[in-house]
Amino acid sequence: MSLPADSPSAGEAARVEDDIIKRIAAILGRGPIPRGERHIGDDAAVLAPFVGQALISTDVAVLGVHLDESLFPLEDLGFKAMASAVSDLAAMGGRTKGAVIAVSSPPGTDLEELHRGIADAAVITSCPVVGGDLTRGRDVSVAVTVFGECPGKGAVLRSGAGPDEKILVTGPLGRSAAGLRRRRGGAPLTDELVVAHRRPWPRLAEGVAARAAGVSAMMDLSDGLGLDLNRLADASGVGFDLDEVPVAEGATHEEAISGGEDYELLMVTSDLERLRMIFADRGLRQPVVIGRTLEDVTTRTLRGASFDRRGWQHQL
Amino acid sequence: MSLPADSPSAGEAARVEDDIIKRIAAILGRGPIPRGERHIGDDAAVLAPFVGQALISTDVAVLGVHLDESLFPLEDLGFKAMASAVSDLAAMGGRTKGAVIAVSSPPGTDLEELHRGIADAAVITSCPVVGGDLTRGRDVSVAVTVFGECPGKGAVLRSGAGPDEKILVTGPLGRSAAGLRRRRGGAPLTDELVVAHRRPWPRLAEGVAARAAGVSAMMDLSDGLGLDLNRLADASGVGFDLDEVPVAEGATHEEAISGGEDYELLMVTSDLERLRMIFADRGLRQPVVIGRTLEDVTTRTLRGASFDRRGWQHQL
Repeated sequence: MSLPADSPSAGEAARVEDDIIKRIAAILGRGPIPRGERHIGDDAAVLAPFVGQALISTDVAVLGVHLDESLFPLEDLGFKAMASAVSDLAAMGGRTKGAVIAVSSPPGTDLEELHRGIADAAVITSCPVVGGDLTRGRDVSVAVTVFGECPGKGAVLRSGAGPDEKILVTGPLGRSAAGLRRRRGGAPLTDELVVAHRRPWPRLAEGVAARAAGVSAMMDLSDGLGLDLNRLADASGVGFDLDEVPVAEGATHEEAISGGEDYELLMVTSDLERLRMIFADRGLRQPVVIGRTLEDVTTRTLRGASFDRRGWQHQL
Repeated sequence: MSLPADSPSAGEAARVEDDIIKRIAAILGRGPIPRGERHIGDDAAVLAPFVGQALISTDVAVLGVHLDESLFPLEDLGFKAMASAVSDLAAMGGRTKGAVIAVSSPPGTDLEELHRGIADAAVITSCPVVGGDLTRGRDVSVAVTVFGECPGKGAVLRSGAGPDEKILVTGPLGRSAAGLRRRRGGAPLTDELVVAHRRPWPRLAEGVAARAAGVSAMMDLSDGLGLDLNRLADASGVGFDLDEVPVAEGATHEEAISGGEDYELLMVTSDLERLRMIFADRGLRQPVVIGRTLEDVTTRTLRGASFDRRGWQHQL
């Protein structure tokens, strides 16, 4: 946005912008900055060397598309954008290193509220916000980019599953979709399932444990099992037959399959005992076996019936 | 965006989305992917270990705010967003490792054209696009996050300048603003100054050379010398007196000071001879001395006259 250079407000506008950035930095900066690092305030953020492979993922959330502002506070947009991006690192078995946030918004947007949601997610995921960019736009849009590291064995891809392996999920499904339904029906923001929708919890510890256990393939359930399991099967070149879909208390079978935004992890392994042992050792809830992979890539069934691609759609 | 799970179009919509992603990946994927790396197609991108400090920066560009679509093709939005983000790595003395792109857009947007501009910038900056996200929104908005590495000596901050050092820029200023003015006046897209506006060239080689030469502070001129030099002085706790502002051929003095988007580098050094020698050794154009830093932080002058904060404003 160019203002005429002789405008009396140019210097003042720059001060206002720098002030907003300072206030947001105060909201985000809850922890000490490691020695030798530089976060908000320079051209780029400077971080200590990563250990092992570097992981990067980006997610954008738009008010009115990803969050209904008549039902939820603006801070939920920030929280969900950050949690969704971090979940992609969990899905590779990675550890979080940091995040940068690019926000566009119309004048009058409560940027501090938006960033409080981001800060809450940064704390629970140990993923400090190290930089960002602010600009004007018609939409309130939050693009979160997270980066992590994968020490030791490499990241777990979604393409590594072979035939005759076990398929598991880290927990029952459909909580987020059920929470959205309940909120639309008038449930308060503090309702347990509504909170599951507003404040998804990336399965970072589970992802690291699964990588340690040598799972062959993994991804996060952001678009629903019906779509994501088919994507994993496509990438790995396998089919599958499911015995069951674990439905969360209060959710419907359909919500569990195609609701999306649960952010539980979907894992495939040929060594179920090792996976169970490592989860138990680390005090994590035991994952649930939901079926097995098949050599025939065209077979995609739930108890013998077709299990087609279905779930959340990003309309373009 | 949730579609009803029983909608007959849900599976089809997923295929359409995956097809768009494949076409964009083909536009972006011009080079071979290093062994052991994984770019577009998994939850997160996986990159080989970085050497030294990691650098991260994010920039968002919105159609109608950062680019006038009546004057410029959509691909310029992609190019400029990418170039602007990469310039932040140049400003630290870093090398590029890769980028991720988050795009929101209304239905009917030519996403392939947008990504062709991104791909062009990725090639000239040796910065492969390794992942992204697409979503629906009212604005066409491109958030580019770039990451780089800084082997050897650490990144150059904007806060390291001391008093009585030389201030330099890597080239004459005002080309971008002059190009915008000329385009508004009817100049063709191929006009040399219009191209300077449409296709800014991040000074990566110059940034690495400046870091090798031990400059004390550096930043890129994205918002204009009038604003950015004052920001560097604030961060370093110094004042300055300028002898001259190098005005590019075809630009005005005012465009050189407050036009913005030139992406030349602003450098401060106490060892001018070393800087000159390293630039000469590497075949780079010699930087121009524009003045010196002062111990009195309140003195901000151009040949004795006040040189206030002024330049591009991001209106919030």
